[in-house]
Amino acid sequence: MTTINASIITIGDELLIGQTIDTNSAFIAQELNKTGIWVHRRVAVGDVYADIRLALDEEGSRSDIIIITGGLGPTADDITKPLLCEYFGGKLVVNEKVLAHVKHLFEKVFRRPGPILERNLKQAEVPDVCTVLHNARGTAPGMLFKKDGKIFISLPGVPHEMKGLMTNEVIPRLQEAFTMPAVVHQTAFTAGQGESQIAELLKDFEPALPPHIKLAYLPNYGMVKLRLTSRGENKEETEKELAPYFDRLQELVKDFLVTNKDETLEQVVGHLLKMKGKTLATAESCTGGYIAHLITSIPGSSAYFNGTVVSYANTIKENVLGVKHDTLETAGAVSEETVLQMAKGALELMNTDYALATSGIMGPDGGTPEKPVGTVWIAAVTKERTETLQLHLRFDRQRNIMLTANAALNFLRRFILANS
Amino acid sequence: MTTINASIITIGDELLIGQTIDTNSAFIAQELNKTGIWVHRRVAVGDVYADIRLALDEEGSRSDIIIITGGLGPTADDITKPLLCEYFGGKLVVNEKVLAHVKHLFEKVFRRPGPILERNLKQAEVPDVCTVLHNARGTAPGMLFKKDGKIFISLPGVPHEMKGLMTNEVIPRLQEAFTMPAVVHQTAFTAGQGESQIAELLKDFEPALPPHIKLAYLPNYGMVKLRLTSRGENKEETEKELAPYFDRLQELVKDFLVTNKDETLEQVVGHLLKMKGKTLATAESCTGGYIAHLITSIPGSSAYFNGTVVSYANTIKENVLGVKHDTLETAGAVSEETVLQMAKGALELMNTDYALATSGIMGPDGGTPEKPVGTVWIAAVTKERTETLQLHLRFDRQRNIMLTANAALNFLRRFILANS
Repeated sequence: MTTINASIITIGDELLIGQTIDTNSAFIAQELNKTGIWVHRRVAVGDVYADIRLALDEEGSRSDIIIITGGLGPTADDITKPLLCEYFGGKLVVNEKVLAHVKHLFEKVFRRPGPILERNLKQAEVPDVCTVLHNARGTAPGMLFKKDGKIFISLPGVPHEMKGLMTNEVIPRLQEAFTMPAVVHQTAFTAGQGESQIAELLKDFEPALPPHIKLAYLPNYGMVKLRLTSRGENKEETEKELAPYFDRLQELVKDFLVTNKDETLEQVVGHLLKMKGKTLATAESCTGGYIAHLITSIPGSSAYFNGTVVSYANTIKENVLGVKHDTLETAGAVSEETVLQMAKGALELMNTDYALATSGIMGPDGGTPEKPVGTVWIAAVTKERTETLQLHLRFDRQRNIMLTANAALNFLRRFILANS
Repeated sequence: MTTINASIITIGDELLIGQTIDTNSAFIAQELNKTGIWVHRRVAVGDVYADIRLALDEEGSRSDIIIITGGLGPTADDITKPLLCEYFGGKLVVNEKVLAHVKHLFEKVFRRPGPILERNLKQAEVPDVCTVLHNARGTAPGMLFKKDGKIFISLPGVPHEMKGLMTNEVIPRLQEAFTMPAVVHQTAFTAGQGESQIAELLKDFEPALPPHIKLAYLPNYGMVKLRLTSRGENKEETEKELAPYFDRLQELVKDFLVTNKDETLEQVVGHLLKMKGKTLATAESCTGGYIAHLITSIPGSSAYFNGTVVSYANTIKENVLGVKHDTLETAGAVSEETVLQMAKGALELMNTDYALATSGIMGPDGGTPEKPVGTVWIAAVTKERTETLQLHLRFDRQRNIMLTANAALNFLRRFILANS
């Protein structure tokens, strides 16, 4: 089976200065991978003529498909487009369709007063040797070039514009241009164990996999995503062949398995609540609303999520959630008693079936010998049942917040399942 | 002035499958950049012997410093370390110091029951030709190699381990090894205008900059960070030379200037409140706790942030925040009246000097002809004053949430300033 190789070239000093994190490459790689194209190299270069040119030469010699992002925005140094013109032997011309689109966006969508800026109108200039890819979400069009049997595609670096172009323009064209192998992914999602522990459970499984079936470990804040990928000529057969391996994988990690779909913990909890027709409220101290943010990031979460009280100040714990004053005095804000009263308070205040509460010391300050930074209490409650969990984290503030949020969501998931 | 060039090589299929976003490269680039090292290429390759080897050859021929991350974890295919051995002409040996550290971590820090796994003990094996860099935060040590006058450094891919190694081990060693140019950054942070509009204000300023002073545009959810970078032989002189340019830059964007330090909007708002000794509460509907998360991500935020009510359900708006039933009936949840009552309710409930409220339709569902997806109302209040703002967003749910949070924080910032 022939492999179709791709390279991704990202252009922009901001990536090399480290001021922006390259999320585009990951999305592009995912989309290409899904369709059976293997990204074997990613290169980032600055807004430097010679460096861009070298990257085009090298990646063009190594890959069938070269996706280029960046260097096209209204504030980009005017290097990329002229370079593409020269490289593919064309000249810059105004594309009337793009020009009309740019005018439409500024007049009808952005509703910007005053004349359109020259720098924005210039977005309509494209090399006359390219196929223009319509950018419905922005002013900079995508461009497709062919050279020596290779396909070069240039996309703007603005993530939501690039994404629209990949989905609506790039992928369909590549599927036409190449006969793709069938690529099948199966993902099992574990929580509560580290990468090494999960790997230990799979130490006989992984080496026994056939060479065309790959296992990827994707640790993420206390969770490990296990992704099996298989490639073949035919989708049905490839799926059929992968199935028993995936069953075996799930069996091996069953004690820590959260889901066998490619979904997040907050999606899993959401599905559970929706299925049971139950509602949830949270009372967050140390997670400061991050759990609520995760839950409400899911479209339709209003069907099962009522709300949250972020009780950062003790007065809120007391006056809004009804935590007893002497509990805060004696046991302290970060204690099993307090987090339980927070959860019960949220359950009652927001009149839900379940409530989840967190209280902890995220750092860098606020630790004591008895309660060092990283001490966290979590509580899940219903009218009839309560459960608590203590964590001892040892990372920086950001990471402690993420870890606590995921641990709490997984704790809630188990609590709901145990409760049915 | 000689430029010291660096390449970053990231190893790991997960980066090419697009399942993890490469945040390491951005951090490494920032740290190198601060010390005067220019990252001119970043390359990502999979766990493939030939690809890693090619990357080492090519980047080694182009850069003075080659930083390699990934391929060292307990579940990594055992390709990278043997390859490094071969490439730099050494053999794998157990390093007793690393072994002792690994044992210490498992017994004292992770407090894992049972014997230490073979795969973890193997972390103590390093090529005998490298300088071992102590990884205080994890089991996989960093490794420094020298070849043909170039420095190669291999680091684990786990972000918080890599970060500790960069700060404590890598940067000091590089500063010893090279005489660095002085690099000075000045950052101005604008909000409320797009990249093109800001660029228009700077259209005469930017081309007039001397070649060794660079301006970077860093758009981020409705804000644009403007970073001036200058390089010279001497720090003081370089700073003195940059100062008037930075003053001019701030003057040109003064109407939209948020801060002239490299800090986030939530940090700026935090400083303001701390300085004034005032407190804040938020009432969030469409932002679902994300504003509270941003605020509480700042250490010490408990000094000025009391808490939040995420009133996702209308009953919470009514029963907890005291929004009038007929306001919800007649004007609806997404309305100026409702968001004002939410803010006033939060101010009273959490007894703060300021309150900020949001209510909107983030999509993809929930839009109507009168109130399409992207309709957002924001309110900021004190006991004496109220102000509201309406937004019309046109992106996906995630982006709409981020944009609303930043717009709300900037609205609050202006409200606080106007209020003094």
